[in-house]
Amino acid sequence: MNPVLVEAMRGGTRESAHRGAIAVLDADGVVVATIGDIERPIFPRSAVKVLQAIPLVDSGAAEQLGLDDEELAVACASHNGEPAHTTVVARMLGKAGLDASALECGTHWPYREIVQREMAAAGREPNALNNNCSGKHAGFLCLACRLGAGLDLRRYAKGYVAPEHPVMRAVTATLQATTGFDLERAPRGTDGCSIPTFAIPLRHLAHAFARVGTGTGLGAGHARAAKRLREAVARHPFMVAGTDRFDTKVMQRLGERVFCKVGAEGVFCAALPERGLGVAIKVDDGNNARAAEVAMAATIEAGLDLDDDAQGFMRALSDVTLRNWNGIEVGALRATAELRASLRLGLR
Amino acid sequence: MNPVLVEAMRGGTRESAHRGAIAVLDADGVVVATIGDIERPIFPRSAVKVLQAIPLVDSGAAEQLGLDDEELAVACASHNGEPAHTTVVARMLGKAGLDASALECGTHWPYREIVQREMAAAGREPNALNNNCSGKHAGFLCLACRLGAGLDLRRYAKGYVAPEHPVMRAVTATLQATTGFDLERAPRGTDGCSIPTFAIPLRHLAHAFARVGTGTGLGAGHARAAKRLREAVARHPFMVAGTDRFDTKVMQRLGERVFCKVGAEGVFCAALPERGLGVAIKVDDGNNARAAEVAMAATIEAGLDLDDDAQGFMRALSDVTLRNWNGIEVGALRATAELRASLRLGLR
Repeated sequence: MNPVLVEAMRGGTRESAHRGAIAVLDADGVVVATIGDIERPIFPRSAVKVLQAIPLVDSGAAEQLGLDDEELAVACASHNGEPAHTTVVARMLGKAGLDASALECGTHWPYREIVQREMAAAGREPNALNNNCSGKHAGFLCLACRLGAGLDLRRYAKGYVAPEHPVMRAVTATLQATTGFDLERAPRGTDGCSIPTFAIPLRHLAHAFARVGTGTGLGAGHARAAKRLREAVARHPFMVAGTDRFDTKVMQRLGERVFCKVGAEGVFCAALPERGLGVAIKVDDGNNARAAEVAMAATIEAGLDLDDDAQGFMRALSDVTLRNWNGIEVGALRATAELRASLRLGLR
Repeated sequence: MNPVLVEAMRGGTRESAHRGAIAVLDADGVVVATIGDIERPIFPRSAVKVLQAIPLVDSGAAEQLGLDDEELAVACASHNGEPAHTTVVARMLGKAGLDASALECGTHWPYREIVQREMAAAGREPNALNNNCSGKHAGFLCLACRLGAGLDLRRYAKGYVAPEHPVMRAVTATLQATTGFDLERAPRGTDGCSIPTFAIPLRHLAHAFARVGTGTGLGAGHARAAKRLREAVARHPFMVAGTDRFDTKVMQRLGERVFCKVGAEGVFCAALPERGLGVAIKVDDGNNARAAEVAMAATIEAGLDLDDDAQGFMRALSDVTLRNWNGIEVGALRATAELRASLRLGLR
């Protein structure tokens, strides 16, 4: 039974509680801090997009197509579907000679409600570019460009989301190499954007992020690609998420000190390169990102030596003041004392 | 430690799990079915709006102002802020000689995204009528009309959300009378719409709903008022929630056989009048309504003798097929076997 990581307080009383598990490992695979069950395979969902983008760089596709930092960053994104995101994704597809019609991620209105309203006010409907995964899929299509060189790209890329397509085989092989987990025997599902998703223990996910943050334990090509992607995201943290999003805010504030990426159903992964550590979090209920964000903020606080300003910035994300529609403070969403104590023990 | 009530499945693997507790009682206070800890006080939030609306009817305010069924139903609502809702709330305020400016619930965009987009496309901004609690607050203002008869209503009603205001004292007294829980010693918080919220054990909440569904154990005035409100909601289930909402769909399908009402943070209460039972559910993580709805659907299935059609209708709500953006089935959100077994045991 996993412990409570995050509690929602109202008027001094615990109103709701989120259980979960956290693994913090170094690149040698040493477990530095651990809370809850880190051996049970969990679906990492979008938290591993950076791992899935490695073949885009490692294959030479990014270089061949002249992809820039914004485009590499959006390839690692679960973005808000804001105009800045869709513009970059469309530009990236253009470099491959494609457009939104080649994307197989499906269409949804941008998650950020104000973006929906702005689109509606302008009389616009969403397309696949607005899908939060469109950048990742554009990356897959750019990879297809390279893998299917000399072939009719439209025909070659068709069905790139299928497990047996060369694009997805390359992506899966990289996921296996970076996590060190045998995906042949992993529980498998279909992700929201239709690609396969494999259940992987938090221990392996944290290990992969320690490797991504350091290069240690990766092949030379993977290490170079991971570094390139991390640098691109550090330069353009807006691209991986967007306005008022945790990933964007934290990386805008802390720069290359953190690479973090949220996933659906309460998953969060991060690398803390200066400590050589990787982090993987799963909140049991997985209902949305609120608890995983608070747990990640507390982990970053414990893992990095922050100045007072940065400490205050992160504390506002690990102990969030809740206000009602009249702006009255009604409670807090915060890391539990138990979580903070476990993290301090491992990460001091 | 509460058991898992609801599980989110992906590709045959349990991806996420929701723990919680359920109390099912009869009007004599006998616990008929129980899962998890039903003695811990929990904030019922909007699930008790029908209890909070009893003084509106019992005081004679509803009759004096000539409130109709739609208006009484919206007084019990957490509505979508759709035009049908805001029209009825505005009409209700008009009967009290007031308008939206008297509402103290605060303003938010309607929760339902398509309503936001329709408003944005029409160039409209939200006001307090769109707040999901505006009907309840309009009810409070109508009650103020009666309690402050002969006084300047605007002045008398000002600050009606404060615990010591005569309106809120009447509402709190009714909450105490119907639940039988001493609110003087209950943990207290402030609700999203600024009124006080008291933490009450599930056992007491379920008991209150059994009383509301039967009249047993209530004073004659409260019993009459509860019946009047239930009938109004049964005639206008759209008013208590709206398009594509659980409460509306279930009451449209099952009519007076169920009175159910969702609350924030994973709370759900219901009365099953033909069985003389009340139900109260709290999902520990409280993150949103998805798990509480599934648990409530399973409880209704177990509690009522349904024909095959109705059974199928409810099963689609207790074992929800999850599809991704391409419409591909990726999993399910469903009541656990453990929950179904516990419910069967108590409710057969």
